[in-house]
Amino acid sequence: MDELDIEAVAEAELDDPVLVEGLPGVGHVGKLAAEHVLEELDSTLVRRVYSEHFPPQVEVGDDGVAELTSAEFHAVETEGRDLLVLTGDNQAQSNEGHYRLTDAFLDVAEDFDVAEVYALGGVPTGELIEEYDVLGAATDESLVEALEGHGVEFREDEPAGGIVGVSGLLLGLGERRGVDAACLMGETSGYLVDPKSAQAVLEILQDQLEFEVDFADLEDRAEEMEEVIGKIQEMEQQQQPNVPSDDDLRYIG
Amino acid sequence: MDELDIEAVAEAELDDPVLVEGLPGVGHVGKLAAEHVLEELDSTLVRRVYSEHFPPQVEVGDDGVAELTSAEFHAVETEGRDLLVLTGDNQAQSNEGHYRLTDAFLDVAEDFDVAEVYALGGVPTGELIEEYDVLGAATDESLVEALEGHGVEFREDEPAGGIVGVSGLLLGLGERRGVDAACLMGETSGYLVDPKSAQAVLEILQDQLEFEVDFADLEDRAEEMEEVIGKIQEMEQQQQPNVPSDDDLRYIG
Amino acid sequence: MDELDIEAVAEAELDDPVLVEGLPGVGHVGKLAAEHVLEELDSTLVRRVYSEHFPPQVEVGDDGVAELTSAEFHAVETEGRDLLVLTGDNQAQSNEGHYRLTDAFLDVAEDFDVAEVYALGGVPTGELIEEYDVLGAATDESLVEALEGHGVEFREDEPAGGIVGVSGLLLGLGERRGVDAACLMGETSGYLVDPKSAQAVLEILQDQLEFEVDFADLEDRAEEMEEVIGKIQEMEQQQQPNVPSDDDLRYIG
Amino acid sequence: MDELDIEAVAEAELDDPVLVEGLPGVGHVGKLAAEHVLEELDSTLVRRVYSEHFPPQVEVGDDGVAELTSAEFHAVETEGRDLLVLTGDNQAQSNEGHYRLTDAFLDVAEDFDVAEVYALGGVPTGELIEEYDVLGAATDESLVEALEGHGVEFREDEPAGGIVGVSGLLLGLGERRGVDAACLMGETSGYLVDPKSAQAVLEILQDQLEFEVDFADLEDRAEEMEEVIGKIQEMEQQQQPNVPSDDDLRYIG
Repeated sequence: MDELDIEAVAEAELDDPVLVEGLPGVGHVGKLAAEHVLEELDSTLVRRVYSEHFPPQVEVGDDGVAELTSAEFHAVETEGRDLLVLTGDNQAQSNEGHYRLTDAFLDVAEDFDVAEVYALGGVPTGELIEEYDVLGAATDESLVEALEGHGVEFREDEPAGGIVGVSGLLLGLGERRGVDAACLMGETSGYLVDPKSAQAVLEILQDQLEFEVDFADLEDRAEEMEEVIGKIQEMEQQQQPNVPSDDDLRYIG
Repeated sequence: MDELDIEAVAEAELDDPVLVEGLPGVGHVGKLAAEHVLEELDSTLVRRVYSEHFPPQVEVGDDGVAELTSAEFHAVETEGRDLLVLTGDNQAQSNEGHYRLTDAFLDVAEDFDVAEVYALGGVPTGELIEEYDVLGAATDESLVEALEGHGVEFREDEPAGGIVGVSGLLLGLGERRGVDAACLMGETSGYLVDPKSAQAVLEILQDQLEFEVDFADLEDRAEEMEEVIGKIQEMEQQQQPNVPSDDDLRYIG
Repeated sequence: MDELDIEAVAEAELDDPVLVEGLPGVGHVGKLAAEHVLEELDSTLVRRVYSEHFPPQVEVGDDGVAELTSAEFHAVETEGRDLLVLTGDNQAQSNEGHYRLTDAFLDVAEDFDVAEVYALGGVPTGELIEEYDVLGAATDESLVEALEGHGVEFREDEPAGGIVGVSGLLLGLGERRGVDAACLMGETSGYLVDPKSAQAVLEILQDQLEFEVDFADLEDRAEEMEEVIGKIQEMEQQQQPNVPSDDDLRYIG
Repeated sequence: MDELDIEAVAEAELDDPVLVEGLPGVGHVGKLAAEHVLEELDSTLVRRVYSEHFPPQVEVGDDGVAELTSAEFHAVETEGRDLLVLTGDNQAQSNEGHYRLTDAFLDVAEDFDVAEVYALGGVPTGELIEEYDVLGAATDESLVEALEGHGVEFREDEPAGGIVGVSGLLLGLGERRGVDAACLMGETSGYLVDPKSAQAVLEILQDQLEFEVDFADLEDRAEEMEEVIGKIQEMEQQQQPNVPSDDDLRYIG
């Protein structure tokens, strides 16, 4: 195998498509969002990208059949803009790997005449989220304005430290190729897989690209996570029964 | 030396051979199994693979003579399928190294017209094993069925995290070259070198490939390991003489 | 993108310019010094160097627009020697990266007919600094003498362990290309961003290159840092109210 | 600079020379030994090897002049075999680096028609040494025998784990080029720079190659180290005044 190996699995006719990327990351927000689109809408697997920058690993399916780890592109036609959805189980394992894989992903996108890229991800806040804001960054100001119109927040110095990995480079390398790109980052605690944050990100993307998906499944997964969180909190309280919490003290008098 | 250097030590006429890989890994199961085959059957060293992806290291023999670390291929004729056995003292030391070495190993296999690959290894359970099950994964369903017929277990979501390293890539890269490949993973605690798990794996391989080896030596090594385990357990008990174990408590009444 | 990508943003006519490098490092001394020059004097961004040896990262500006991380060269005309100022947010992330980026930086310098290089940085002392000495190293003895004349200290065995990173390699690789180069290292505690150390380094550079900048802004930042240090020391004292310090004990009798 | 850059500093006519390598390692035994030869005998610096596999670093001399880190070859004529002595301040920083630098070192050796290589180093014992044995390994049995005749010990399974780094690869890659090579490893505690171990190694090398150096300076350094060890032991005793040592107990009766 070469350093990068792009397998053409099928072809698809997409009308002015946008690339939507959702690889693993904070709270699995981007991956959950991209996979939810594939579950809700009809899609065709069109490309697989294998690379020695991924871990040396196969994934084993329920049928016992192993497959070399890869990133996958699915073609999705919607009532709005058509989508080329990029998902996978791994990020690159080195600096150079991130640059080279992102370049390969942009090559695939160019093959499908993609002129706009949306990188989906999460941004960790360190605490449980009440209201799921979505932060943004983009390659040019007109895209910033359009997204602001749909409720995306652009905050000074956030995310601190910039945007790292494929999501960041889709903007950085995209801009250098003349491709418009935006990153949509759902706020998430950073401790747990976060379907609610994924939904918040998808709702923005829907408005921007004028397509629609059903959120019932994602809401079910969110409820399951709520129950898990509830049980963890219960267990923590039982372990410290005699220590009054700040709230208890506040109401003594 | 180049990045990869394949030394042709000897030639051998093998009849429809299969590649059997046993490099170091969990419980040294694969390595023990492959080396046991070489100890019990006549074999010829046919290829050495040197690589800068191995550690920068020489091994020193009993005669004081040093040899550059390498992976070795031995040709073995059996009453069943002929074998090309791959062993060695090291794994690759990087992601890229795993991909490139596995490609080189498959190149050697192709030179010998190998059409089927068996990667041997261990899967850690975290506890001492009573019954030595063997888990499997393969590149296609017919191979899965054949191995199930010999008692290999194919379990949903196991091994969790997929199969990593050369064993995994022999399946992943093998499949992409059109080579059938299976991985046989003996359950093992993960804490100790495990000859019993190696024997369990070899018994499956024997059935599948219709050859036979004697297990007396491997059983002797297993007994030695049992004694070691016994002594460790004894020492642990002596260090905590006053703490009744779960077993003690269970039998009080 | 290639391994290294030099973007020509603008051209500039510089008269016998010197390269002044200030990338992130100990106490951010070099970066503070180089950026202060750019803030005080008129400058033109002439080159950007992108590289997969930098982190896979974009930085997001106040307008929400993301830019691929890069090193930047600004052309600065002064009343003394003209300057080509190299700054950026990142160092290379690997050994090879340091060598290859420094070679690229020297290539850019050659494009502008730079014949002399000044690498600015900090050297950690492990304690708060009273008097801000500047240590030096250079590619030849005449440059050592000239800098000694401006108060730079050249001390046996300092910095211990040599000079590491781009600053060191500008001297090492510069010398091998026949470019004169010196490193000016301001003493700094190593614990905090240190504007005073940056000023000490710049004062030497001014004398050597016969240009002048105003230090009011850098002095303001130094005062802010002093306040921060003061508050930290106060907090530490409050946490240990009953433990007499060495000084207290010394004056008891 | 390329990945590897061999600078021809001077030429030298050597008569059937041997390569003697002493790079940094356990107890600095090899480096001390090689540098002692250069201090005691007339030598000419003939080659420098620069490489991006070394750290990105310059060393600063007493005159304030910085030099890019490198490995150096000195030509030394002796009354016995002539020597090409390889020393330096650094080892390679990666697996691949070790392989590629060793290949470059063997290229330089070939330029000088070297047919025999001696890699000097230390082997850690974990305890203070009374009698300084020297362990060996070689590329063929006749060299093993010759060295055994001079008192080198060849022990089964030692050094455990083989020989790692340039010293190991000089044997491993040397053998593959048809160059005879041996490794001489002085026993050393592994905790301290060990001039006595270096002397033990050099005494063997002298006998084997029929040259002679004075050991007075190395003995002085050994005495200094003994004093350091003595002071450390004293300090340790003062910190635990009431705990009788094994020695005390042994002499009570």
